[in-house]
Amino acid sequence: MKFYYSPGSCALAVQIALFEAGADFEATRLNFGAAEQSSDAFLAINPKARVPALVTEHGILTETPALLLYIAQAYPDAALAPLDNPFELARMQAFNNYLCSTVHVAHAHGGRGVRWADQPESLADMKNKVPETMTACFELIEQEYFKGPWVMGEDFSICDGYLLTVSNWLARDQVDRTRFPKVDAHAARMLERPLTRQAWEQHFAE
Amino acid sequence: MKFYYSPGSCALAVQIALFEAGADFEATRLNFGAAEQSSDAFLAINPKARVPALVTEHGILTETPALLLYIAQAYPDAALAPLDNPFELARMQAFNNYLCSTVHVAHAHGGRGVRWADQPESLADMKNKVPETMTACFELIEQEYFKGPWVMGEDFSICDGYLLTVSNWLARDQVDRTRFPKVDAHAARMLERPLTRQAWEQHFAE
Repeated sequence: MKFYYSPGSCALAVQIALFEAGADFEATRLNFGAAEQSSDAFLAINPKARVPALVTEHGILTETPALLLYIAQAYPDAALAPLDNPFELARMQAFNNYLCSTVHVAHAHGGRGVRWADQPESLADMKNKVPETMTACFELIEQEYFKGPWVMGEDFSICDGYLLTVSNWLARDQVDRTRFPKVDAHAARMLERPLTRQAWEQHFAE
Repeated sequence: MKFYYSPGSCALAVQIALFEAGADFEATRLNFGAAEQSSDAFLAINPKARVPALVTEHGILTETPALLLYIAQAYPDAALAPLDNPFELARMQAFNNYLCSTVHVAHAHGGRGVRWADQPESLADMKNKVPETMTACFELIEQEYFKGPWVMGEDFSICDGYLLTVSNWLARDQVDRTRFPKVDAHAARMLERPLTRQAWEQHFAE
């Protein structure tokens, strides 16, 4: 498999899942600073000009929650999702969907406001609101959705790498993660996992 | 099961899946105009103050793509998803994730800009850009992702009610759906399905 990512993006969540699954893959780093995601070569892989993208033997897959579930299903021995329990699986998917459609979107208004507005004043207004929206999201995660010690409770899952990825953005968003003690301890716990650590080091390597 | 929705929301996608699955459920309409989604009673069901929400015998589920997959898994005889093919399932999930995290978000900047900015000028700027962003999203769907006659190809799936739900927003977004002939024909094809039609009528009934 070929995996495409850019440092600091949500692709880290998938990279962690690939390492935790023991998948054999080749990682390709895109330089967003040089707009490599908009090159003809990459648009042929993902017309959305985004990462992550995973080239599998069956075809190309995109979108973080879809890739996470695919990895959990393709490597069942790694036990990365409650595959035999539709309700627990839906609870897991709901967590990942909240991260992608609400929390990631709140964060993106800091650096990617041009997706949704044109005027410099609007972009500044959006950026200014990010600490408030990200704080509200993480209050909900801390109080309602994080079970502990892992997101889903006793069992590590594909939610955990995704939560680490997004909670790692809080510093950039001017939010102090220690305000959310469970989420903050989770990040430290994650980085003690050897495979997650390897994924992290590959992701952030220059 | 108890299902919570508001008219015109993405909950329609789940309502269509419930009807197409032959599920036995009670539908409760929330009046967003009266902020019923923020009532203490509803916050106890969904602390995110959003629809859809589904109260099942196992517990409460939220987030449209998670609910759609749950319904497909809970009613396998309805054949609403390629449950035995992880790659095709991931392709289906990727489509639904694109709708929730990119297309729905683009649309929401028209009426829900206060989620991401404070100044009236910013909200007007966001609203002004919606036709452009929704057009870009639907060009991609029309050209890259819609297989036909249904989203995934020959087989009807949980993607179809979701696409109808979102393509139905285009008029509100000042985008002419007939610019996307495949998507426009899909909407007409959907409304010829008796169960989808019943879901639609329940959803939009006063």
